[in-house]
Amino acid sequence: MAKKTMKTMDGNTAAAHVAYAMTDTAAIYPITPSTPMGEIADEWAAQGRTNIFGQKVQIRQMQSEAGAAGAVHGSLAGGALTTTFTASQGLLLMIPNMYKMSGELLPGVFHVSARALAAHALSIFGDHQDVMACRQTGFAMLFSNSVQEVMDLSLVTHLASLEASIPFMSIFDGFRTSHEIQKIEVIDYEDMKPLLNTEKLDAFRARSMNPEHPDVRGTAQNPDIYFQGRETINTYYDAIPDIVDGYMKKVAKITGRKYKLFDYVGHPEAEKIIIAMGSGCEAAEETVNYLNSTGEKVGLVKVRLFRPFSVKHMMSVIPKTVTKIAVLDRTKEPGALGDPLYMDIVAAYAGTKNAPQIVGGRYGLGSKEFTPAMVKSVFDSLAKPKHGFTVGIVDDVTNSSLFDCQCVDTTPEGTVQVKFWGLGSDGTVGANKQAIKIIGDNTDLYAQGYFAYDSKKSGGITISHLRFGKKPLQSTYLITDADYIACHNPSYVNLYDLLEGIKDGGTFVLNSPWTAEDMETKLPAAMRRTMAEKNLKFYTVDAVKIAQGVGLGGRINMVMQTAFFKLSDVIPFKKAVTLLKEGIESAYGKKGPKIVDMNNAAVDNAVDAIVEIPVKAEWKKLEDDAPKASKEPAYVKDVMRPVLGQKGDNLPVSAFSHDGTMPVATSKYEKRGVAIMTPEWVKENCIQCNQCSFVCPHSALRSVLADDTEMVKAPKSFETLDAMGKDAKGMQFRLQVNTLDCLGCGNCADICPAKEKALVMQPIASQTKVQIHNFDFSNKVSYKDVMDRGTVKGSQYRQSLMEFSGACAGCGETPYVKVITQL
Amino acid sequence: MAKKTMKTMDGNTAAAHVAYAMTDTAAIYPITPSTPMGEIADEWAAQGRTNIFGQKVQIRQMQSEAGAAGAVHGSLAGGALTTTFTASQGLLLMIPNMYKMSGELLPGVFHVSARALAAHALSIFGDHQDVMACRQTGFAMLFSNSVQEVMDLSLVTHLASLEASIPFMSIFDGFRTSHEIQKIEVIDYEDMKPLLNTEKLDAFRARSMNPEHPDVRGTAQNPDIYFQGRETINTYYDAIPDIVDGYMKKVAKITGRKYKLFDYVGHPEAEKIIIAMGSGCEAAEETVNYLNSTGEKVGLVKVRLFRPFSVKHMMSVIPKTVTKIAVLDRTKEPGALGDPLYMDIVAAYAGTKNAPQIVGGRYGLGSKEFTPAMVKSVFDSLAKPKHGFTVGIVDDVTNSSLFDCQCVDTTPEGTVQVKFWGLGSDGTVGANKQAIKIIGDNTDLYAQGYFAYDSKKSGGITISHLRFGKKPLQSTYLITDADYIACHNPSYVNLYDLLEGIKDGGTFVLNSPWTAEDMETKLPAAMRRTMAEKNLKFYTVDAVKIAQGVGLGGRINMVMQTAFFKLSDVIPFKKAVTLLKEGIESAYGKKGPKIVDMNNAAVDNAVDAIVEIPVKAEWKKLEDDAPKASKEPAYVKDVMRPVLGQKGDNLPVSAFSHDGTMPVATSKYEKRGVAIMTPEWVKENCIQCNQCSFVCPHSALRSVLADDTEMVKAPKSFETLDAMGKDAKGMQFRLQVNTLDCLGCGNCADICPAKEKALVMQPIASQTKVQIHNFDFSNKVSYKDVMDRGTVKGSQYRQSLMEFSGACAGCGETPYVKVITQL
Repeated sequence: MAKKTMKTMDGNTAAAHVAYAMTDTAAIYPITPSTPMGEIADEWAAQGRTNIFGQKVQIRQMQSEAGAAGAVHGSLAGGALTTTFTASQGLLLMIPNMYKMSGELLPGVFHVSARALAAHALSIFGDHQDVMACRQTGFAMLFSNSVQEVMDLSLVTHLASLEASIPFMSIFDGFRTSHEIQKIEVIDYEDMKPLLNTEKLDAFRARSMNPEHPDVRGTAQNPDIYFQGRETINTYYDAIPDIVDGYMKKVAKITGRKYKLFDYVGHPEAEKIIIAMGSGCEAAEETVNYLNSTGEKVGLVKVRLFRPFSVKHMMSVIPKTVTKIAVLDRTKEPGALGDPLYMDIVAAYAGTKNAPQIVGGRYGLGSKEFTPAMVKSVFDSLAKPKHGFTVGIVDDVTNSSLFDCQCVDTTPEGTVQVKFWGLGSDGTVGANKQAIKIIGDNTDLYAQGYFAYDSKKSGGITISHLRFGKKPLQSTYLITDADYIACHNPSYVNLYDLLEGIKDGGTFVLNSPWTAEDMETKLPAAMRRTMAEKNLKFYTVDAVKIAQGVGLGGRINMVMQTAFFKLSDVIPFKKAVTLLKEGIESAYGKKGPKIVDMNNAAVDNAVDAIVEIPVKAEWKKLEDDAPKASKEPAYVKDVMRPVLGQKGDNLPVSAFSHDGTMPVATSKYEKRGVAIMTPEWVKENCIQCNQCSFVCPHSALRSVLADDTEMVKAPKSFETLDAMGKDAKGMQFRLQVNTLDCLGCGNCADICPAKEKALVMQPIASQTKVQIHNFDFSNKVSYKDVMDRGTVKGSQYRQSLMEFSGACAGCGETPYVKVITQL
Repeated sequence: MAKKTMKTMDGNTAAAHVAYAMTDTAAIYPITPSTPMGEIADEWAAQGRTNIFGQKVQIRQMQSEAGAAGAVHGSLAGGALTTTFTASQGLLLMIPNMYKMSGELLPGVFHVSARALAAHALSIFGDHQDVMACRQTGFAMLFSNSVQEVMDLSLVTHLASLEASIPFMSIFDGFRTSHEIQKIEVIDYEDMKPLLNTEKLDAFRARSMNPEHPDVRGTAQNPDIYFQGRETINTYYDAIPDIVDGYMKKVAKITGRKYKLFDYVGHPEAEKIIIAMGSGCEAAEETVNYLNSTGEKVGLVKVRLFRPFSVKHMMSVIPKTVTKIAVLDRTKEPGALGDPLYMDIVAAYAGTKNAPQIVGGRYGLGSKEFTPAMVKSVFDSLAKPKHGFTVGIVDDVTNSSLFDCQCVDTTPEGTVQVKFWGLGSDGTVGANKQAIKIIGDNTDLYAQGYFAYDSKKSGGITISHLRFGKKPLQSTYLITDADYIACHNPSYVNLYDLLEGIKDGGTFVLNSPWTAEDMETKLPAAMRRTMAEKNLKFYTVDAVKIAQGVGLGGRINMVMQTAFFKLSDVIPFKKAVTLLKEGIESAYGKKGPKIVDMNNAAVDNAVDAIVEIPVKAEWKKLEDDAPKASKEPAYVKDVMRPVLGQKGDNLPVSAFSHDGTMPVATSKYEKRGVAIMTPEWVKENCIQCNQCSFVCPHSALRSVLADDTEMVKAPKSFETLDAMGKDAKGMQFRLQVNTLDCLGCGNCADICPAKEKALVMQPIASQTKVQIHNFDFSNKVSYKDVMDRGTVKGSQYRQSLMEFSGACAGCGETPYVKVITQL
């Protein structure tokens, strides 16, 4: 067996590692979540990395996935080992060419980070709808369930494809596997090389298109002979199962990790089993082990080679004792009697005497969570099997869903589970990835990281889920039982249920400027009650202050990472500090000592800034704060608010329109107030150039004009300047920030051309109330109305009229400023 | 019930008729065999025809099928009833949009003339690979099996789609149904109109995209809610079977033709049944009726609504007595346990006690013939059921094929079956279509026409298969038992087995200039033997002579059509002549009386030109002519020759390369000699301009040069001129025709600029031998060799060097002229 090289990487990197080794040419086009595979391979090629043949891989980005598929087809026809990376609609664009590749017996490999398809709505997340839409193309299909399996089985696909002369899809779940970081064993290129069948390679190259020995391809065949030609390939498919099995054994010889076409895990005399594919098998295996440890007799068949489907191989692993089978599909085919894997299992048992009872169910569409609780509910449901169930959602329309019992903690003992709430682009995710690397590469602990984002990207919410443990981590689901939760943004205490699922005695760390006294008013009652009930250790760190102090502005990640190492105790803190600083040196060394010093100072200062806040026993008695009366539309109250509050998983099917439509103009209800720093207007310095308003990417800062009749309605705190310019003569000018929409990017302050900046970024807490009135940006006044005022036309920048309307959503006191934009 | 309007049309026209009625907008892109649907609809729109709403249909051709699908999606979202017409790879390009349409509950209809997909080779012919690649998209799928069913069930799809808010594919088999001409009953637009659910139409329009009531579509949904949103549509699918069934009943009320989601035909206590979809069901039904009439107990389930698949509806029609089921799929999914319909039937019976034994088989890929003999062999095979069979081919590689017994004639009594062998563009197919129309529209006979082509189009072979009978014609296969066979090209007697399957006492008509005496030498021995053994009536018509005589040149179709009416006696000949002349008037009236008169004369002269040739009893004893010794490569002998001889159906799977490759440079072996007229060189008139050689589209006429050393080897009959031009000084010039490659287009004679034409088109028989030596056009002499001769460079036209090589393939006497082209 080869020597072990452990590395911490995600599934995409593992796939790219193998693909790069075995490829002459890759034709690519980016699509989430497959993009990093192509990017990584492209980067390696640019760096001059060589494949097992000692050559750089030729990588070409095409105009679309359709073009990439055409290029793969052409390249294979030309005798080059060719690969692509894709998913979802991108894969669909390749379908026509896929029939050609399989029909012409070309051994290409598609690495697919399987993803949902756009139907009622788009989803960039994982399920098997895309690959299942290609199961009829003649491609072989091999599923990997974890990052380690991507490393191992991707290699099998490349080797088997060449041997079999049939193209393969090497499939793993989008995001859950493609973006999950795991500490895995890497297979060295030198170990891969001897496995390749060079005779087959020579034969493949020999039958390529070549003017030296030309042939005709892509002929048009008539009814007399097309059918016969279509049947010439059958023996190739018959051979695949044994070829794949053979390479699984050969790869096992160098890695020690054994796979079969169908892997059975569980009780040797199981009565009830689940059959499934993809990352869900990891959660299912964990649950099977747990349930058997409690005396049940259950099992799991992991289908690896889905096409060609070998009944013989499957039957050889299923215990004879099985009487009931639940087949789980991660796809949906409306109008079919069952989803594809279910249909296969039924067909596999067709005509068998005393066949088990078989039902099919659907789970995990669009990366919907698939947890041990759900796995258990599937097994429970087999007491009274029901075909066509769903699990993981509440289907209150066709009542297909199983009861989800929420009652098992199957994580292996000793696993540390950590959750971070961050703001998109605040550095939390990057810092966590570094933390995993530090722990993974410097201890014998296994590490897992999965990062949940909303769709707002920069400025959205990020939730990092980290696990560390002595055993490989199979928990392919979000953390539901956390040892440690950190929140990097104080505004979240009012927005999210931050402590959901924290363990008794767990640790909660909050970045905030608040004192113990402040906490009594700033934290919702429910949060404080949970702290008390669960005996949490509660810490606060004013990370913004430290970061600002050392010159890092709003970049608080190094402070919070240090706090994590200090408080979590996953590795000795001293060692952690050394490793952190080594990391800083290697990351920022090139940028000069100043940046390195600032980050080192953030590490050093973090420890002293950690303040433990006593959790009061009396908090146990707190009652929930009264919910604010809301006049919001039903959709906002019933759908949007839960989704924004990270409770969308609980919404039932009936909450949604049938055709995917949603009401318009709902973003105005989402006033998040997540900026750590917002601009403060120093009016004395303002030259009324309006550039700040122009550059604000979120329309959160606007210059406004008011005339005398309006100023009468204005509160005292509404400070203004006499407006400059002929058109605005006699009016009052003001820069108005909506701190609830502001994301604190600072573009306004950066652009300000005044001698002394008229806009200064400040922690929101330090600003005077007068600055933080908010406004309602709506356009209900028609263009004609605005023109009739005849005051602001010809302005180079967006300039706005304003009127007062209602109370400020921020402070509840001074009036809203309603801004009417004119271009 | 509405009054009956019978018309003779093909499946595409029937689909276009209904689609046009029910459509606001159609976005189209042409692809065989669906193209005529879009063309017809476009033509109607241009003519101002109105749909049931009294409006012209808006038809837009896009840049590809992908664009058409996008336009259909957008148009539906905009509230317009929208349609497209497509097939094969075109349909595959629509897949991504199809998920969107079904996910958004948009009632569009795709009319699909189902076609094979390009894999090892392309096929423009019919099977279900394309639609089966879309069965997971959420489209409902309804199959029509005949032209009449296209008319009836297309209407059901439009009505049901609107009612169900789900898009439909209305599917019928490419070519076999799309291009088969049948006399059918047309549904009037006024009868369709009341069937449309106007409330549903209003609701559909009301939920369209509209700035007056905007909504958001095409949102991106995260793991929390995508799954729930994907399940909102289930009730819509649950409702479809009853909706479709309801509209089948409503349409039946106006037409009298009843359909069910699954139609059972056959013995009420059948033990063995076939389950199938598409045009094959017609042949199967015919065979089931025949077999039951011989005492068997067999049946057939025609699956009409394939998606959503309703088990309840299927089970309600299958006799309880059934013990064995053969499921026939017209598609191929390499690596699957069975093809899609088989998988469905197995799943439908899953868990049923005492379920019948179910096997699946494949037939008819790429319009491979599916005949009663094959249907019978499927039933026969159920004695010992074997899953995964093929029928219709000889699979000698994986031995999947059933024995095809070739022993049933199931055509209803009184059906007249007629077969015409023609040359592409000689007018045979057009004349046959006219004949069907004449018979269909002027008698109470049902008529069917199907036209088999090779891929050479103009100049290729056409075989027209016509049936006439008192009952609707279900024989969805080529004619195997002909009452009448006509051959429009005398050269075919040596190329094809023209009399294959002719009935005892049948009629054979040959267009030829040959006398009874000539026949003894011109006709192969086997042909004469068949005539004698089968007691055929044998006629010849020198149609070329008549056509030339009346000024129609090589257009012999009117002569041969008249001969058909005279000899076949399908309708009284006098009536036929009247109808033929009416047809001539309406077809050519606009072109002036001259053309009309020429055609009328062709009709009048045809009768007298029919010469009956006595069939000699002694021909029975004739032995086959000795086969010519052949040095051709194995591929040419074993694959190409049978294919060219219309015997490709008999080639086994082992005859073909596994990956679809074929050898190059094989067309040189195909010397057909099918031109009725070829150019004769009148050398006295020749000005050696070479334009004839330049325009010849088949490189069948070349100007050649020879020097003295070559002329020594030339035969006396090899007449030449002294070559003109400085470079060619001292050489001999000749225009050389290869009459075996010539297709008789006459371009050379047309272009000849000489005062008196130096090229004259003549019936080949009237030419002197000296003109018809043939040549081998090969390029084995290298460019350098040619340059070394230093004689012909700088010529404006292609000019060739030549040498003599072997005997002429045409006359066997004088030498081949081997031509070496220089550009």
